[in-house]
This record gives sequence, structure tokens and C-alpha cells, in this order.
Amino acid sequence: MRRAEILAIGSELLLGGRLDTNSLFLTDELAALGIEVRWKTVVGDDEADIAAAIRVAAQRADLVVMTGGLGPTGDDLTREAVARVTNRPLRRHADAVKGMTQRLAAWGRTPTAAQMKQAFIPSSAAVLANPVGSAPGFCLSWKGCQLIALPGVPAEAKAMFAKEATRFVAEPIQARARTRIERRVLHTFGILEAELDARLGPLVAPRRGVRFGLLASPLGVTVSLTACGGTSEIAALDQATHAVQQDLGGLVYAEGTTTMEEVVGRALTTRKMTIAVAESCTGGLIGHRLTQVPGSSTYLDRVLVCYSNEAKIELLDVPKVVLTRHGAVSPEVAAAMARGVRERSKTDVGLSVTGIAGPGGSTAQKPIGLVYVGFDAKGMGALAKEFRFHGPRDTIKLRASQAALNLLRQWLPVAQSK
Amino acid sequence: MRRAEILAIGSELLLGGRLDTNSLFLTDELAALGIEVRWKTVVGDDEADIAAAIRVAAQRADLVVMTGGLGPTGDDLTREAVARVTNRPLRRHADAVKGMTQRLAAWGRTPTAAQMKQAFIPSSAAVLANPVGSAPGFCLSWKGCQLIALPGVPAEAKAMFAKEATRFVAEPIQARARTRIERRVLHTFGILEAELDARLGPLVAPRRGVRFGLLASPLGVTVSLTACGGTSEIAALDQATHAVQQDLGGLVYAEGTTTMEEVVGRALTTRKMTIAVAESCTGGLIGHRLTQVPGSSTYLDRVLVCYSNEAKIELLDVPKVVLTRHGAVSPEVAAAMARGVRERSKTDVGLSVTGIAGPGGSTAQKPIGLVYVGFDAKGMGALAKEFRFHGPRDTIKLRASQAALNLLRQWLPVAQSK
Repeated sequence: MRRAEILAIGSELLLGGRLDTNSLFLTDELAALGIEVRWKTVVGDDEADIAAAIRVAAQRADLVVMTGGLGPTGDDLTREAVARVTNRPLRRHADAVKGMTQRLAAWGRTPTAAQMKQAFIPSSAAVLANPVGSAPGFCLSWKGCQLIALPGVPAEAKAMFAKEATRFVAEPIQARARTRIERRVLHTFGILEAELDARLGPLVAPRRGVRFGLLASPLGVTVSLTACGGTSEIAALDQATHAVQQDLGGLVYAEGTTTMEEVVGRALTTRKMTIAVAESCTGGLIGHRLTQVPGSSTYLDRVLVCYSNEAKIELLDVPKVVLTRHGAVSPEVAAAMARGVRERSKTDVGLSVTGIAGPGGSTAQKPIGLVYVGFDAKGMGALAKEFRFHGPRDTIKLRASQAALNLLRQWLPVAQSK
Repeated sequence: MRRAEILAIGSELLLGGRLDTNSLFLTDELAALGIEVRWKTVVGDDEADIAAAIRVAAQRADLVVMTGGLGPTGDDLTREAVARVTNRPLRRHADAVKGMTQRLAAWGRTPTAAQMKQAFIPSSAAVLANPVGSAPGFCLSWKGCQLIALPGVPAEAKAMFAKEATRFVAEPIQARARTRIERRVLHTFGILEAELDARLGPLVAPRRGVRFGLLASPLGVTVSLTACGGTSEIAALDQATHAVQQDLGGLVYAEGTTTMEEVVGRALTTRKMTIAVAESCTGGLIGHRLTQVPGSSTYLDRVLVCYSNEAKIELLDVPKVVLTRHGAVSPEVAAAMARGVRERSKTDVGLSVTGIAGPGGSTAQKPIGLVYVGFDAKGMGALAKEFRFHGPRDTIKLRASQAALNLLRQWLPVAQSK
């Protein structure tokens, strides 16, 4: 298996609270080509530092993908550093000039002197056209290592890699290797990371070449299963994935890049059901998440964020006596909110959340993180479920929104069968 | 100035769509101590790879901060790699055993055999107690380079660095250097990155030692000004920051880590004004953002997400004739929504958004990204402003929410003066 290093170039990635995100898509693209990213390095806009990093990378990797430092300013030094390391002087490259001139002409402009600098490429390097911006990339071989330079702007790096770089990367490999890296991703909610670890370890361990990883977030724990290898390893990966799915059942709410809001959106669409939402402590987050899905207007009628008791009475018909007797954060109020928003909006389903996101508003009986989710559907009594979350305000909001959408996912089939 | 390398260890950072986020806080913490992060490296759970990366890092940096690979499993190999590189065999360290046993005892547990492995530390290294989890860290000097190993879990790495590591890092420096790295961050909305670049370049260029960077996102463009040096460089940084602030005026909506929702929250609190929001295409995102701020319940009365025309008529009193004549995405409807939600909720201010987030719902006259923000306050007529955004659905939602909150920020003083 070929080994790659990603070298991100730019001082802004060392200062200024920024991370190199290009490596995420590059890792995925390279994995699909059977190339394993073994190292990622970030270095600033310093020619000597860049040159040294290229030397280190070329020594240990078969492929070095550089991003950044190809622009027109004095800070852009990737070309110079590569030229210095490989001892291939920069030459004005006709293809680079042509591509750049054409692209700028399409925008009604001509290259400036600074931009013309971008057309100077190490001699013997192949030019990679930039389908999005003005800076060309390049690709060359040096001491048995392939060096590829892409722009730092993610949209440009992505487009150039997809259109230009893959042919340089893929060709020498396809003939050689039938090896690839594949990954399966399962999203769970309602089970702890430690418990997943204990349950899945024995299931995955016997499958040769399959590794699993867990990543906890406020939205749940994500299980990744990865295999590097050929047909037998990929078959083992599929078996392991199947075993995990069987073991976890309904705890898995989605796979791959699918989100919870897409899952409930599909469930509502399939059942031709409409929904209305009443939020309190989540403050609109459930509505925001539901409306991230294109076409959500066909099933989402309205979302009412009612912080005050008055709004709960006026807009959701929550009886005043229920609020007084049980308090706004109670299963009774959650159920009444779900029923009220459903009846007022004449939808099939009503969903509600009431809770204490903190840092204020808690009492001894009702601590920060106490959340009730309410659910109501035609023909069944309104239900409420209690949750207790930990963490800062934004985490509690996220977990509460996820709990509510997960409950919707679980109760929709029940509601329909009534 | 001392030069640092951050070495993040963990295969999950090379596969699985994850980035090393520890380097963000480490970079900030080290900058505050006058240490410049010059390199970041990511390497997988392979002992030879880790060892090689440590060698490279120790050669070029004065300080190497490692994160990850300190846990109890077979994948955790940082201790072994450091021991191998520095030729200091692992020894069971009494302080490490004690700290770990005490922490686990507080959770009502005793260390497992696997966890006991965590107490084996390279000989002559100092133990760094873990104030949050069970794995201790360590610190040692080797060939003039300081090596610090922290856990990979962000909460543990942060707490350990703050409580334990800084004393090892800071002591040898304070005597030596009066040099530090400082950064000022200004958040703008409503001006293009290229325009900012052209305006700010000439302002910042004459200030010696001050660099500026721009970062565009759907929420606007962030200007970072950075200086590395002593008193005169920091004075130049303050002058440059002042010049930029003067030049940009109201285009800057916040500084540092302050968010737009905090800015408008403070403006409402100071003026003792209350608000109600009517959202359409943003789907609850404005409510979600406003309620990210603790205490927002004192000024936010309600948020109504009204997708359908029926809901706009029923809940916001938008006249049916206005909807029919101008369509739901129009300045007239935006103004009527803002007025309706304010009058119904009896708040001081009403804010509304209506638009086309896409990918469906557009026409030749009303393209994707067309958004109207409405604003209404007591004693003034309802206003609406048009915006045209580009990008996918989630970007348009984000930009629309930011435009609405920014308009609120700009119009609040006007509203109060009426």
C-alpha cells in the first residue's frame, strides 16, 4: 500500500484559530484510491521551513500532497521551496500562462504582474489546471516520491484534485494494487461510549484486518469500522458491520453521512405525515435542524418557540393550572405542548421540548440538564419522556434536540399503527 | 523566540473524518507564553511512525507537545515511542500510580490491569497529573528539547496543560524572553474579502512586525492582526488595530470571541427592550442563535417559524391580500411579519426573515438566495431590506440569519431614538 503525507502550508493554519480542513477530503479521496495517509504536517509561510518539511515528507512517503502557498503574494512560497529542494529552477510554463489567462479572461480580466508569478513552475513539473481559481498547481517526481502542489482554498483544492491530480496519482497504482481502504460509519444515540466499546470489541476483534473506532459527541456516539486490504478484508469489514448492526439494532439511527434530521424527514415523507414543533429550551434548534433538509416544507408546518408561560398558554393552549401545579419543566407541560401545537396546526404529529439549558433557572428538584420531550399523534394520548443531560448550555441544547428527533424516529411507526 | 511543534498521535486523526482540534487551544496557550508553534504533525498509532516523528520534531523545535496515545489500550503507544527514542526505559512511577488510584477511587473504582499500564512513564520524566481522566501525562528534556505528552481527549489535554504543563514550559522562558505573540480579531459583516484586503493592506503594511489575515465564512469576514515581539511590536499592533477599527467603523460587529448573538443580546439588555422573531426560510436558526446566549429568556419572548401562508396569516396577521399580491418572499410580507409578531407578542421589537433557501422554490423573478429581512419597532413603520446570497441551503440559512441579526444591531439604536 502506498503511503502519503499531506503537507498543509500557511501561517494562518498555525495562528488564528484555523485548522487545515483540506486534509479531510484528501484523506477520503486517497483512501478510495488505495493510498493511506500516514502523516499530516502543517508548516507556515517560511521558505526554509517548507523546504525542510518537503524533505522529511519525501523521505518517508511515496506521495506528498501539498496544499497552499500557490497564490500571487509574497507569502506564497511553495513554488520556490519545491524548486529549491528538488533543484529544478522555476520556469515560466506556457500551459500555466494559457490556463490562467483563459480563466481570468472569462471574468473579463487580464493577469496582473503578481498573478503572472503563479505561472512559474519547477522545470519538468506537469501543470495542473485550476478549474475554479487563477493559481495553477503542479506535479513532479523526485527521488521516487511524487510531489503534488494544490492551492489552499478548499474549493480550488477539491476541484483540482478531482479533475487533474487523480490521473497522476491513480495511474501508477491501479496496475499495482488491488488494495483499498474502506470505512463504514454507524451513528448511535442513547448508549454510552464505554458500553459500546465493551459490546463491540468482542464482535470486531475476530475479523482480521478490521479496526473500529468510537467518537462521542453531543449528537451520540459514532462507530467507524475500517479495513485496509483486498477482497477478503473488505468481506470481513462487511461481516463485522453486519454483526454490529444486528447487535445494536434500533440504537443505530443512521449510517454514513446521513443525519438524524434526514432520517426523520424521510420517515415523515414515507408515511405522508405532517408535523408541528413546540420548543422551549432548545430555542429553535429543532426547527433549524428539520429545515436543513431540502423539501422539509412539505412535512413541517410550523415551529413555535415559547419561552414564557404566557406564550405557552396563548399559542399552545397549555392549561394554566398545569403550568402552576407542575411547573414549565415537567412531563405534563411537555405533553400539553405537543398536543397543543398539533391541534392548533392540524398536523398529524406534535413534538415538544421543555427543559433547563442553564446556566440559570435550575432548582434542587429541577437541575440544569433536566429535559422533557413530548410527543402527540392523532388517536393516541400525548406522551412525555424524561432526560438528564450534562454540559454547558450549547451541549444541552444539542443533546435535547437530538433526543427529541430520536424519539420522533422511534414513535412515528407506533403513531402510524394506531 | 522558542519554537514549538505539536504532534497529534492517533489513527482516528488520519482516517474517519476527524481533525486534531487540540492544536487550536495549544497554539493560543503557547502564544500567550511567547512560544511560536512552527509545525503541526499528525501521525497514526504506529510505534515506529511515532518514534520517527518525535525525532524529526525534537531536531527542529525547542518544545514538542504530544497529544494522544496515553490510554490503556494496545493502540496507545506514545509512552513506548518516547522511551525508545530517548532511550529511557518505562518504569512504574509512584506518583502516576497514586494520582490514578485516587482519581478512580473518587469514581468508586480501582485501576484495572490495562489502566496500570498508564503509570509506566519513561525514567527521569516528571509526571503530569490528569485532573479530569485517568491517564497521566509526562514531561522530560532530551537533547535540549522539552517533550511533553498530554492525553488526546480535549478536556483532559486542556486541564492538564493548564494545571500541570505550563509550569514546565513557562519557567525556563520567563527569565529569558520578553517576547510574546498577540492577536486581535475583528469580525465584519457586509464587506467582501477582496475589498477588505485592498482597504486594510495599506493601513497595516507600514506597522513593523504586524501581519494581518482574512478568513471568510457565511457569517462574514474575520480580520486577524498578529504581532510577534516585544513592547514596540505590541504597540504597533494596537495602532494597526485602531486604524483598522477607524477605517471599518460599523462594519465591525464584534471583537475576539464575541458572537453576533451576544452583541445583539447585550444591545437589547442595555436598552431594556424585548424582541419577538418570525422566521420562514431560516427555519428556527435565528431563535437557536439568540438562545445560545445565557439569559436570553429575559429579552426573547417568542420565535414563530411559519413556513406556510396559512401560518403567516393565522399567527402573524399577514394580510392575505399582501401574500397574494406580492408573494411570500417579498419586502411587503417581511415587513408585515415583523409587525405581526411584534404586535401579537407585545414586544418592543419584531424581526422577520422570508426568503428562498433552495434548492427548490425559486422562479425567474425570485431566485435561490433572495432574502428579505423585516424589522418593526414601536413608533416607527415596519422596514424591510433585500439581500441576495449564494451557496447551498445551509449557507443561505446562515447568511440570512446573520444579515437579520446584523440589521437588528444596526436598527436598534434608531428604533430607540424614535
